[in-house]
Amino acid sequence: MRRIGIADTTFARFDMGGAAIDELKAQGTGFKVERYTVPGIKDLPVACLKLLQEGDCDLVIALGMPGAKPIDKQCAHEASTGLIRAQLMTGKHIIEVFVHEDEAEDEGGLAWLMDRRAREHAVNAYDLMFRPERLAKRAGKGLRQGYDDAGEIKAAMSSTSTPSKGGGWKE
Amino acid sequence: MRRIGIADTTFARFDMGGAAIDELKAQGTGFKVERYTVPGIKDLPVACLKLLQEGDCDLVIALGMPGAKPIDKQCAHEASTGLIRAQLMTGKHIIEVFVHEDEAEDEGGLAWLMDRRAREHAVNAYDLMFRPERLAKRAGKGLRQGYDDAGEIKAAMSSTSTPSKGGGWKE
Amino acid sequence: MRRIGIADTTFARFDMGGAAIDELKAQGTGFKVERYTVPGIKDLPVACLKLLQEGDCDLVIALGMPGAKPIDKQCAHEASTGLIRAQLMTGKHIIEVFVHEDEAEDEGGLAWLMDRRAREHAVNAYDLMFRPERLAKRAGKGLRQGYDDAGEIKAAMSSTSTPSKGGGWKE
Amino acid sequence: MRRIGIADTTFARFDMGGAAIDELKAQGTGFKVERYTVPGIKDLPVACLKLLQEGDCDLVIALGMPGAKPIDKQCAHEASTGLIRAQLMTGKHIIEVFVHEDEAEDEGGLAWLMDRRAREHAVNAYDLMFRPERLAKRAGKGLRQGYDDAGEIKAAMSSTSTPSKGGGWKE
Amino acid sequence: MRRIGIADTTFARFDMGGAAIDELKAQGTGFKVERYTVPGIKDLPVACLKLLQEGDCDLVIALGMPGAKPIDKQCAHEASTGLIRAQLMTGKHIIEVFVHEDEAEDEGGLAWLMDRRAREHAVNAYDLMFRPERLAKRAGKGLRQGYDDAGEIKAAMSSTSTPSKGGGWKE
Repeated sequence: MRRIGIADTTFARFDMGGAAIDELKAQGTGFKVERYTVPGIKDLPVACLKLLQEGDCDLVIALGMPGAKPIDKQCAHEASTGLIRAQLMTGKHIIEVFVHEDEAEDEGGLAWLMDRRAREHAVNAYDLMFRPERLAKRAGKGLRQGYDDAGEIKAAMSSTSTPSKGGGWKE
Repeated sequence: MRRIGIADTTFARFDMGGAAIDELKAQGTGFKVERYTVPGIKDLPVACLKLLQEGDCDLVIALGMPGAKPIDKQCAHEASTGLIRAQLMTGKHIIEVFVHEDEAEDEGGLAWLMDRRAREHAVNAYDLMFRPERLAKRAGKGLRQGYDDAGEIKAAMSSTSTPSKGGGWKE
Repeated sequence: MRRIGIADTTFARFDMGGAAIDELKAQGTGFKVERYTVPGIKDLPVACLKLLQEGDCDLVIALGMPGAKPIDKQCAHEASTGLIRAQLMTGKHIIEVFVHEDEAEDEGGLAWLMDRRAREHAVNAYDLMFRPERLAKRAGKGLRQGYDDAGEIKAAMSSTSTPSKGGGWKE
Repeated sequence: MRRIGIADTTFARFDMGGAAIDELKAQGTGFKVERYTVPGIKDLPVACLKLLQEGDCDLVIALGMPGAKPIDKQCAHEASTGLIRAQLMTGKHIIEVFVHEDEAEDEGGLAWLMDRRAREHAVNAYDLMFRPERLAKRAGKGLRQGYDDAGEIKAAMSSTSTPSKGGGWKE
Repeated sequence: MRRIGIADTTFARFDMGGAAIDELKAQGTGFKVERYTVPGIKDLPVACLKLLQEGDCDLVIALGMPGAKPIDKQCAHEASTGLIRAQLMTGKHIIEVFVHEDEAEDEGGLAWLMDRRAREHAVNAYDLMFRPERLAKRAGKGLRQGYDDAGEIKAAMSSTSTPSKGGGWKE
């Protein structure tokens, strides 16, 4: 039985953790969920570490909603840096699901976005654990979580390399 | 007997550590407090590490007041990054309670905010150690420490996932 | 048999991983390729660590396309910092191949740039593993990956040191 | 016999290390000083680590003068981050004494500030090692090193917590 | 026989590594040089680690030329942070010699600056290994590498500390 951790905050204005758990269960079975709620996003790195080490989780989804002020952007940066460090310490994935309060124009749109992104990253987390081939098939497809996918683009000209020219390309 | 560390500074203009200790004692018993005062916020990471390792604390509350100048914001960023690293080194929580000198309009309001935030984060620290279920019940409730809570928001439309469409959502 | 890892994302809008693999195979033989696709660039550091440790790769090429918004630049910074940490943890190279979405004027040019840079860095990766003397010969040559090489420059005046003058140079 | 390390630079325009040593000796006895001079502030983290590990120092004072340009601010940020990491690696304090070249209006004022801050932080270092109770008594007193102290402030209204209201405070 | 590592890039537009080696040899003997060339500055941290660990070097000089665009400044920041981490991992010095492409007004001046700074930092590296007393004698002398030295400054007023006044200074 695999274990998926859910780390979320009381600061966020929507129950992203609940949405992620609901979506995970819609994807399939074969895993248990362990949830850990902390005050804010800067408490998430050690919360995820505890879920991965003490809680023996195989993967954690870390959900939060940074505020709109410059100081909030800095907090998000510090939290993200810590989440990456926690992954490198454990060799396990932590899927960061952050929605910045200024990404939507009103509260209804913000809540919708928090719900959508949490659900779509829950699918990514499930894929990483149970069906990685599904991600491999979508490499470079311009996928997004929340709003529309950006989609794949095509090169304007054919391209062949010229290593003998020093790795530089002359147009 | 659990141990809670209090790390604060001589740079701060209000006794945040004292407010946090006072509030902790109002929450309940079953813990001892160990206090360590350093000059400034950049001295807090190693002070917290000492409290967690040498002082054998289970959790530390780190309190400080970054100044209003750009260089002070940078110091706060460096201190926060170190506090997160110290948590990942020990697997224990450090609740950061920073009040930026420019968060309030006058000295009276600043002191009030420093007192409030220290007290409300002391409650969060107590909850993390003694009643985590209290935090779990408040996941996504938009709680704040100091000023008013932001509160919970509702989605403008119902949401169901479409993993078969590649994790992307078409409006 | 050496092993080269390819870590890429579903967020990118062009198959940079495919281009890198195609170019690697055009350079020579003597290596196996292991590919790992994750959702976004912040998932790359631990993906590369897994390729280097669990996948026993000797080197990894990490490919991604940060978006054009300020928050995307911050994500790229966090990902790059993690990629450097992963290299220092393993003592192995991770060649970062990032193309920022705002580096080109249109989608065709962007796709072309993503393809070119992926291919030219694949050559760099191959050189690091199989022909380091090729890089040594090009030290200080102003090479670029994607657009034109900047080229080498010459000093405007001859230069001799004056260590006896305290390491400072008086014009 | 305790050991205090002094790490300074040839880049700084005033002998901050000399001022710190002079002040330390004015505070009391019972310690030996070990001094290590490096070119610039980015060389200070490993210099301090060497003093703490190879030189067996109990505490180090790191003194430097970042320049006034944006790039210098970035260097100071990198150096400070490294100094905090070195503290967390050793569990020992490194008192950072940086004076930015643009903190004073002229060279005389800058030299005065570099001397003052070095001396007042030397007192902080001495207190951390030999009389921590002196720092504890000054928690939240708004102390500064160099220019005037900011001083303590008082709250505009009395404050009592309302944990039962969810950690949020309603004015 | 001591060992000095030289890590440089193919991105730089001038052979800084060659200048550093030439200058080192002009300083004296008793050391061997090991050179390692990588594509860009973000590849320098692990290259330096390899020189220090696998190459058993006692010290490394890391030379690079960050570009003039904001993204290049960010790359330089990431590289510098990694170089400091590599130093803390090994307890050995890495002398960073970066010349930003926008530090000079034309290509001739840029190449001159790259040559000068590489040479003068090579002297610093030699001093750190073979004559540290030479650096100690220059503490606080305002030395620069490349352009003119800034020089030493004098305090505008005599200064005596007032620790009994709480570490704060009243003008």
